[in-house]
Amino acid sequence: MRLSTYFLPLLRENPTEAQIVSHRLMLRSGMIRQSSAGIYSWLPFGLRVLRKIENIVRDEQNRAGAQELLMPTIQPAELWRESGRYDDYGDEMLRIRDRHERDMLYGPTNEELITDIFRQNIKSYRDLPKNLYHIQWKFRDEVRPRFGVMRGREFLMKDAYSFDLDLAGARRSYNKMFLAYLRTFARLGLKAIPMRADTGPIGGDLSHEFIILADTGESQVYCDKAWLNTDILSSNVEYDGDLQPFFQRWTALYAATEEKHDVANSPIPAADLLAARGIEVGQIFYLGTKYSRPMNAVVAGPDGEQIVAEMGCYGIGVSRLTGAIIEASHDDSGIIWPESVAPFHAGLINLRAGDSASTAAADGLYAALLKAGIDALYDDRAESPGVKFAAMDLIGLPWQLVVGPRSLQRGVVEVKNRRSGQREDMTAEAAINRLRAGL
Amino acid sequence: MRLSTYFLPLLRENPTEAQIVSHRLMLRSGMIRQSSAGIYSWLPFGLRVLRKIENIVRDEQNRAGAQELLMPTIQPAELWRESGRYDDYGDEMLRIRDRHERDMLYGPTNEELITDIFRQNIKSYRDLPKNLYHIQWKFRDEVRPRFGVMRGREFLMKDAYSFDLDLAGARRSYNKMFLAYLRTFARLGLKAIPMRADTGPIGGDLSHEFIILADTGESQVYCDKAWLNTDILSSNVEYDGDLQPFFQRWTALYAATEEKHDVANSPIPAADLLAARGIEVGQIFYLGTKYSRPMNAVVAGPDGEQIVAEMGCYGIGVSRLTGAIIEASHDDSGIIWPESVAPFHAGLINLRAGDSASTAAADGLYAALLKAGIDALYDDRAESPGVKFAAMDLIGLPWQLVVGPRSLQRGVVEVKNRRSGQREDMTAEAAINRLRAGL
Repeated sequence: MRLSTYFLPLLRENPTEAQIVSHRLMLRSGMIRQSSAGIYSWLPFGLRVLRKIENIVRDEQNRAGAQELLMPTIQPAELWRESGRYDDYGDEMLRIRDRHERDMLYGPTNEELITDIFRQNIKSYRDLPKNLYHIQWKFRDEVRPRFGVMRGREFLMKDAYSFDLDLAGARRSYNKMFLAYLRTFARLGLKAIPMRADTGPIGGDLSHEFIILADTGESQVYCDKAWLNTDILSSNVEYDGDLQPFFQRWTALYAATEEKHDVANSPIPAADLLAARGIEVGQIFYLGTKYSRPMNAVVAGPDGEQIVAEMGCYGIGVSRLTGAIIEASHDDSGIIWPESVAPFHAGLINLRAGDSASTAAADGLYAALLKAGIDALYDDRAESPGVKFAAMDLIGLPWQLVVGPRSLQRGVVEVKNRRSGQREDMTAEAAINRLRAGL
Repeated sequence: MRLSTYFLPLLRENPTEAQIVSHRLMLRSGMIRQSSAGIYSWLPFGLRVLRKIENIVRDEQNRAGAQELLMPTIQPAELWRESGRYDDYGDEMLRIRDRHERDMLYGPTNEELITDIFRQNIKSYRDLPKNLYHIQWKFRDEVRPRFGVMRGREFLMKDAYSFDLDLAGARRSYNKMFLAYLRTFARLGLKAIPMRADTGPIGGDLSHEFIILADTGESQVYCDKAWLNTDILSSNVEYDGDLQPFFQRWTALYAATEEKHDVANSPIPAADLLAARGIEVGQIFYLGTKYSRPMNAVVAGPDGEQIVAEMGCYGIGVSRLTGAIIEASHDDSGIIWPESVAPFHAGLINLRAGDSASTAAADGLYAALLKAGIDALYDDRAESPGVKFAAMDLIGLPWQLVVGPRSLQRGVVEVKNRRSGQREDMTAEAAINRLRAGL
């Protein structure tokens, strides 16, 4: 993509309304724009990141055997009256009356609707287990929406719902999601630590929050320092096999939220304890029959007996993750995208857009990058080198390639790694090979 | 995907609530389920089709130079008061009041919001032209939602908005979308005929509807019979070149909606005239300054003068297309998916799930199909051959492979083409090669 034609409205100044770094950087790098309090449009640069995150989440859900469907945003109130949550949910639920005066709502979550789909379509024990998920916009009418997409009102969430015949099956479904979540966050370049959590108003009696460490985190968390050296992706998880050993391994190290941690009686020595700020990026729950019983989600067993489905639910804040990744990965100059979610793999700067030799070289390198399958953003604007360098650091693409009259004379391009800051001169061919190695 | 574990709730009987064939078949084939009037959940099989359609639409938008962003579903009423449409829109607009008593609405379309984004972020003539689109759920509170996803209330739409400096630029943007639409529908396996249309409440003075022919179409249309022999995809459109000749070529043949056609004075001889039923699947509009002027969407020209942006808007009903494709492509046994949007490329039937040799052969063929990159749905259920054949015809995958004890003895599998009905026995290897040829 050529920056001269790309819709990327960069801001040089920090917007005053943004209190946290991810919000500031998402506005400055032209990723989002607010349309009303807590509601954002995702501009092309931001949407690319959102879709990359979504695709990694989807890939790991599918790998764990969950099946994707898509429920609508607008739900009928009747289902929530059946579960008893219509009156309980309070002002966070966006309630709507349609032209025929029927009570509707913009779904803040989907337990009721998925349970209704289940009971209407799944009748036999042979059809279980099932884990159904969707990635859909939700609405929660926060009284004080803030921190950009971190606490917005309209937000994108992946929510999965498992249905099993018994507790052992539900536990197995829970473990699958537990592991899928660890893998998902690791692939997103995040160190997410599972912490035993209160189940809260959603119910059930087993739950973990997945929390990433970031100085700007919303809550205090405590964990074993050894968490920092774990490597999730090196374990080869076979979802058909026994998952309990994996679960035990990844819950053996201490980790607790502020609510669960007793500062006076820490279960691990102070030398091993890391106290840090954390951001919640996912939560999983064993629900039992909290929804299936009142809503009569039953299947016929082998002898015709009625079995109430054992449920679990599993959420990942997809739009929130965009902000969370920036909170965890930035410096004073801007964003530093992990390669897996980077909106473009490389940025190409033509230092002298008015110079025909420099422009010809940059145009040629751009074409070669695209041909090599490297998604590149080409700054071909008539701006000063300083403006271009600052813009490229701000938007945080993993690699920067710089072409200018001086490097041209030496037959090289400058290659900079955004994360390490390391610069190296090499031929265009060598640069392309270097970048391809990271794909 | 193995059918024994796939969430595909098939219905053997025609649901009484469905009046048209696409609605019946989408319910019977487990693609959708209604959650309230005109609001549907997309089950896994239906979602696969929806995503394939969406990806073809996206690909052709990108190819024509449009850039994707994503606007939220909930919009502030103020923007619609600026354009004057808040009061005009009537009961079809789903109006919402949030917890702070602010007037909001669920977007039925996005002219106001995109114009607001434009005026806040695009300031110079150098930034034009721009064409920005999104693929997002919309809501129109139809008084009588019906025909399944063909006239639902919550529906998925691709809407693009172009911004140009002058009429010539706007015309060029219009032509790009005109051609992108022809290509999109052709790739979806549809013959969509552009018809000059009234601009209606959306405004502007140049518009085309794209209408596909189907016996069950909602409106009467007239066109030159030669339309049936056109081949859009054989033209190689270069979007940087002169597009007017293409536009002229594809509007030279007569085509008109009922409102525009004068039966008593047909402009072409009766022998050349095709009178048929049609379904609208897209519409494009030149808007002029209908929104940019009242909302002050201006850029600074080369000499600092203020230029009011010339706009166009371009819509495709993505969820509606799912139904429209079925209306255009089905028989008495069920759906016949065009290969480009088929949820799976092939169905594999194990005729005797209880027979170990038959099962081993089917399992082996399934593994070989996946390895060859052929997305297959494997009916491994313990059902009768008759049930399996009927299910496979109903769901309409392009190819069916049948493995059973008798064909096994002869070392072959039966390969059936769903559209032609033609059956052929061949080795598993030959079958895979046949199917790969269609990818």
